[in-house]
Order: sequence, then structure tokens, then C-alpha cells
Amino acid sequence: MKLHGYFRSSAAYRVRIALNLKGLEAEHLPHHLRKGEQRAPSYLALNPQGLVPALENDAGTVLTQSVAIIEWLDETHPTPPLLPKDALQRAKVRAFALAIACDTHPVQNLKVLARLRELGLAEEKVQDWAAWVNREGLGACETLIANEPGPFCFGDAPGLADLCLVPQLANARRFGVDLAAFPRLLKAETAAKSIKAFEDAAPDRQPDAE
Amino acid sequence: MKLHGYFRSSAAYRVRIALNLKGLEAEHLPHHLRKGEQRAPSYLALNPQGLVPALENDAGTVLTQSVAIIEWLDETHPTPPLLPKDALQRAKVRAFALAIACDTHPVQNLKVLARLRELGLAEEKVQDWAAWVNREGLGACETLIANEPGPFCFGDAPGLADLCLVPQLANARRFGVDLAAFPRLLKAETAAKSIKAFEDAAPDRQPDAE
Repeated sequence: MKLHGYFRSSAAYRVRIALNLKGLEAEHLPHHLRKGEQRAPSYLALNPQGLVPALENDAGTVLTQSVAIIEWLDETHPTPPLLPKDALQRAKVRAFALAIACDTHPVQNLKVLARLRELGLAEEKVQDWAAWVNREGLGACETLIANEPGPFCFGDAPGLADLCLVPQLANARRFGVDLAAFPRLLKAETAAKSIKAFEDAAPDRQPDAE
Repeated sequence: MKLHGYFRSSAAYRVRIALNLKGLEAEHLPHHLRKGEQRAPSYLALNPQGLVPALENDAGTVLTQSVAIIEWLDETHPTPPLLPKDALQRAKVRAFALAIACDTHPVQNLKVLARLRELGLAEEKVQDWAAWVNREGLGACETLIANEPGPFCFGDAPGLADLCLVPQLANARRFGVDLAAFPRLLKAETAAKSIKAFEDAAPDRQPDAE
């Protein structure tokens, strides 16, 4: 398999963790987002959204959207599972993951922030925007798992929720968000970071890290 | 079941279609988003994100995030299926749905547009923003299914992709996007709109429509 990514992309980071947890090898093909390489015609032919990640499977089929890729990995390589067996629990895990993957990350990604700058917003206001989006999203996530004993987001093993949380917390720190208000999220992050699959997927461990 | 929604919310619209396709009854509880009712403490206690939809099942458990709700409905009421059986095809359908549910809708929702206005952006620029987001997202979606014969997004029956597409096209029209550039999406919409489950879920058919 080939994973098209970027060291700092939190969506690519989610898929890197999933591959590591499943013990799957993939060739990592970085695309430098700040240089606009994701808009190259050769990449748009793979992913018309011009976003990373994209995963090429061994047959050459291209899969896009990190959560869809992770669900596919979980369906085709079920051990260890990234979603609970019970339908209601699956729904709760997916809802937490999508609170990040839908309502948080895409509203503060590189493309959106670049557009805000194009509209004349001062850099300080752009950073404020990104911090606001992270505070709103993570604040809701903190409440969603407040009564979950953990130590992971849901239960005693990492899953789709943790795969989305850990990269988002890294984004929030880059945007200067005070994470002390989110003790339950930090507890889950501490549990995740004790696992090699998470550590090896970290941005600063990637070959294209700057 | 109880569905907390709003006639014009495209995320609630997705769930209304799913309920109709599955032949499931739900009590519809509208929350007037433009009046801020989704920020009322009583609603935040149900959904800390302060977004619609939220679905209360018969046991009183609250599910959030439209795509997670739809996956739960599909797992607990499998007929008719909203995802294909084949894992790779499921991944493609989910990727299309998430291109809308992650990268399009949340970047142009009421909350984001309100924030742009707070930052001093003129109304024309706010509308331009929403149109831009829709053009980018739908443009990628057009390419994602360009080689799918249809008439629906994927194959000859409606599924998760169509549930996300039809409400997003309604948003795009409200923001003045010229949809003539997306003939494959319009073909899928035409197929979907011939089905009563889609028509009955339309915003102007809801009791809270204005």
C-alpha cells in the first residue's frame, strides 16, 4: 500500500496510527501542503479533493477521506478492532470521531486559513479563528466522554475516537489552545501516547518533518 | 424515536431521508437555529456540540452526528441497505459522503458564517465564502462519481452518498452556485427526487418550514 500524506496533516496522522495499530506496512509518499503539491494535476488525478491522505491499496485503487480509509482498514484487517461490536457503542465512537473530523479539523485546515488571509484577515485573527474552532470542538468532545471511565476515549483499548483525538490535540497546541480545560481528553492522550503505534505516527517522526 | 432537527439543516435532512427510506417513524422536534435554540442549556445537555441533528432512541439514548446516526440506523435496520456489502465499495461511498459531511457542509454552516460576520466581513463576502465552499466540495464529488453509471451516486439504489448529496445541493442553490457544471450530481439528484422518502424529507415539507 501507498499512503499519500504530509507529516503535519492531522488527517494523515490518523491513518498512520491505524496502519501502525494493524501492523500494516505502507510506503509513505509525502506531498508538501505548504508548497501546494496537493494541487498538482498528478495528485488531483488521485484525489480530486486535493487533500491528504489518500491510500492506494495493493491493487492500485485509491481511497480518500481518512475516516473512510480507517473504516476500510478495520473491515479488511479486523485485529485489533478500532470500533466496538455493539451498534450503540459504535455510534458513540463514530460521533466523537466525526465531531473532530467534520466540525473541527476541516474548519481550521490550511485551505480555510489561507482563504481567511486572502479575505484580508490579519494573521492574529486567523490564529484566533483556528484556536476558536479547536476550543469549540474539543470542548464538546470533553463532555461527550466525561462519563467514560477510560483510560482511552472509550474503554481500555484505543479506537477510532483516539485516532482522531490525538492529532487534533497536536493541532490545538500549535494554535495556542489552553488544554487544561480538557482533563478527560488529556487522560486519553496520555494513554494513547504510551503506545508505540501512536508515537511512531507522530509528525516529528515522519521523514518529511521539518 | 425523537429526531431533534431544523427544517433547513442539511445534516438533519440527511437523517430524515434515512428514516423515511427505512420506514421508521420518529417524532420531529424542531430547534430554531437562527434564533439560537440549539444553544439552550436543555439542548446542550442532549448534544454538547449545540448542533442538529440528535436522535433519541426508544431507550432514551442520544445519538449525535448525522453520519454516525445513519450508520447506526443502517446497522440496526439493515433493509434497505444504505452501504454496499463490498468493503472497497463501502469505502468509496463513505469517502463521497464525508467529502460533503466533513469538508463542505461544516465549513459553510450557520455557525461559521455567523463568525465571519462577527469578524467584520461584508454580507456579500460571506455569501461568496459559502458559494466557494460548495463549488469546491461539489466539484470534487462530481469527479469522484464521474465513471459511476448510476443513476444514483453509486449504482441503481440510493445510499449514504445520495443522503448527503441531495441536502448539499439544496444548500448550494441557496448560495447561488451554478450547478450546471455538475451534470453527474444532478443526474443522481433527479433519481433521488423521484423517491417519496427523499421528497417527504425536503425542508419545505417540514412542519417548522418558514
